Amino acid sequence: MSQPILAVSRRTRRTPLSPRVEAHGVKGYTVYNHMLLATAFRSFEEDYRHLKRHVQVWDVVCERQVEIAGPDAGRLVQFMTPRDMGGVAVGQCAYAPFVDENGGMINDPVVLKLADDRFWVSVADSDVVLWSKGLARGMGLDVSVFEPEVGPLAVQGPRADDLAARVFGEDVRAIRFFRFARLPFQGRELVVARSGWSKQGGFEIYIDDADNGLALYDALFAAGADLDVRPGCPNLIERIEGGLLSYGNDMTIGNDPFECALDRYCHLDADTDFIGRAALEAIRDAGGPGRAVRGVTFEGETCPACVEAWPVAAGGAHAGYLTSAARSPDLGVNIGLAMIERDRWEPGTAVTVETPEGARAGAVTGLPFIEPRPRSVQASSASSKG
Amino acid sequence: MSQPILAVSRRTRRTPLSPRVEAHGVKGYTVYNHMLLATAFRSFEEDYRHLKRHVQVWDVVCERQVEIAGPDAGRLVQFMTPRDMGGVAVGQCAYAPFVDENGGMINDPVVLKLADDRFWVSVADSDVVLWSKGLARGMGLDVSVFEPEVGPLAVQGPRADDLAARVFGEDVRAIRFFRFARLPFQGRELVVARSGWSKQGGFEIYIDDADNGLALYDALFAAGADLDVRPGCPNLIERIEGGLLSYGNDMTIGNDPFECALDRYCHLDADTDFIGRAALEAIRDAGGPGRAVRGVTFEGETCPACVEAWPVAAGGAHAGYLTSAARSPDLGVNIGLAMIERDRWEPGTAVTVETPEGARAGAVTGLPFIEPRPRSVQASSASSKG
Repeated sequence: MSQPILAVSRRTRRTPLSPRVEAHGVKGYTVYNHMLLATAFRSFEEDYRHLKRHVQVWDVVCERQVEIAGPDAGRLVQFMTPRDMGGVAVGQCAYAPFVDENGGMINDPVVLKLADDRFWVSVADSDVVLWSKGLARGMGLDVSVFEPEVGPLAVQGPRADDLAARVFGEDVRAIRFFRFARLPFQGRELVVARSGWSKQGGFEIYIDDADNGLALYDALFAAGADLDVRPGCPNLIERIEGGLLSYGNDMTIGNDPFECALDRYCHLDADTDFIGRAALEAIRDAGGPGRAVRGVTFEGETCPACVEAWPVAAGGAHAGYLTSAARSPDLGVNIGLAMIERDRWEPGTAVTVETPEGARAGAVTGLPFIEPRPRSVQASSASSKG
Repeated sequence: MSQPILAVSRRTRRTPLSPRVEAHGVKGYTVYNHMLLATAFRSFEEDYRHLKRHVQVWDVVCERQVEIAGPDAGRLVQFMTPRDMGGVAVGQCAYAPFVDENGGMINDPVVLKLADDRFWVSVADSDVVLWSKGLARGMGLDVSVFEPEVGPLAVQGPRADDLAARVFGEDVRAIRFFRFARLPFQGRELVVARSGWSKQGGFEIYIDDADNGLALYDALFAAGADLDVRPGCPNLIERIEGGLLSYGNDMTIGNDPFECALDRYCHLDADTDFIGRAALEAIRDAGGPGRAVRGVTFEGETCPACVEAWPVAAGGAHAGYLTSAARSPDLGVNIGLAMIERDRWEPGTAVTVETPEGARAGAVTGLPFIEPRPRSVQASSASSKG
């Protein structure tokens, strides 16, 4: 397949940071929540090597915020997720699968608790604002639901703390994993969270207009010249190595959170009222899901682009399908994320992956392929997601 | 700005027709409802000239269907739109603005009434399935809401009737504007509607899997060789000439249907229960909207790509913003769609358009710029949309 250009229009919105992304010579784009998201600057592999060694600044403003505010805000947020939100504190970022009445994945956002009655839901690629508004209006809740003009600029990589400290001061180092603080920048206070869609550590800083976004972007580059700071974006190779699932790629509304290995965010024993409870309890009571996400390694010197699900077979029978794939330079092997049937999901099971370039021999593995780099004790957490 | 490639993944889904679109050498893509949509094959202008003279086959499977079925289906559909759906018959396609509690545009779909208790909502670029499901679940309605694997293949252009008749038989000519019939194709019955996102006439045929989609695509090309049938897609120039608004470009959730010149689909005097009624009545009672969509012509031998809203001024003061623009070869002038303030919206008002290549003098016009080609008496309708 040739590589057609992306025809940009107002509907596939630019972000406040697009002028810098373009000036840095972005090579590829995708569209995410109706906005532009870079996919590569030099190449997947060159960006990957840099991300794992240095520090990058990412325009991920496309991770839109859905603001839920008002007397019933907490009730609505709880109603959308099997995670028990009761223990989530103000200042915390809570990864929370959102499910529908069938237990199907609506999204897998990070919920920022700004106040007891005010949340930002930082969403993956689906219109959670419409789902939330629909539920709120249908239920007659006393809550406002809207998309403010707010989105993250991410600082990711092993030197992220050093770079962020030069711009926000040393206080930034004390922010714990999946917590946020409000830190000053040019006379404003910005929400700075220790989070981000890589396993290399770093921050997401919530910018709310073009002026502070561009000023922050430029300040980070000015402060980080000797750190070899570069533009970046969520990296296909690194996120597969780290076992980070992408909504729309590795899970859809046709998958439940157990299939997505999100059991630890499904608190069915908690006394909560959420929309998919009956469906998820039925799956639990039946002994769990019939398939789940696993890693797959497979042979080949190169890895084709995975633009459609690839069938996976074991012993000549259907075993599942692979949904994201890349060659890992650090592992020296092709790796992928796959939804694998229960009777084939044991790590070590031999499989065959049907790629567009022919069948490749492989094996089921656990996840992640590579453990995240250790965080300092202060920033550590038992969870890979907060 | 350079032209980055679109990095395709499973999340930006291919359609059942993508193999043919690629084989025809698609030049540009956009992402629409999480799926690929071609934007050009030869060039905007060459595609435009061909569309207005011959016949094209379009992959618009990305116009996803939201199926709403069950005892409360009619109630839910009515609840989402100010259009009085009471008079809509089975077999009819009803253009229906969907609004939220503020009267803001959620989408502007075409609703196909398949049965008294079953509808397909053929949507523009927003996740109407989440909005509909959220309302249904919140209201406790007895209705199922889901996205079936169904989407349109369009046949558009002055020779569309001739081409469609060769594949579906002469019965296809009798389908009235914004009506559909079930016609046989290779042992199946397909929904064939006289509709489509151009003003050149034609059909949308709802395919429901890759096999019948590809077979139909190939049958149309085989039957139309002497008609110079070509691959096509919604064309930027032709749709602006025809005054077709694009959701996300020319209207957003920040606009109400009056601003979008959709007054004739707002039946506030009907005895219907819909979500934005109070908000729309308030706008009506205040004397109508403060701004509305208009055409704008402006000078220049070429037209830059409009990827962000361009400010429009009149008499040195803010007059609105322009959201879609192209040079019209047939009119010999640059044309655009713009949201213009009430005190400046009179056709003939002199304006200045701030393009990325500098200010251009222009004037407000009515819409459309070019009237649609006349249809036969049988196929005619008082409305440009059914």
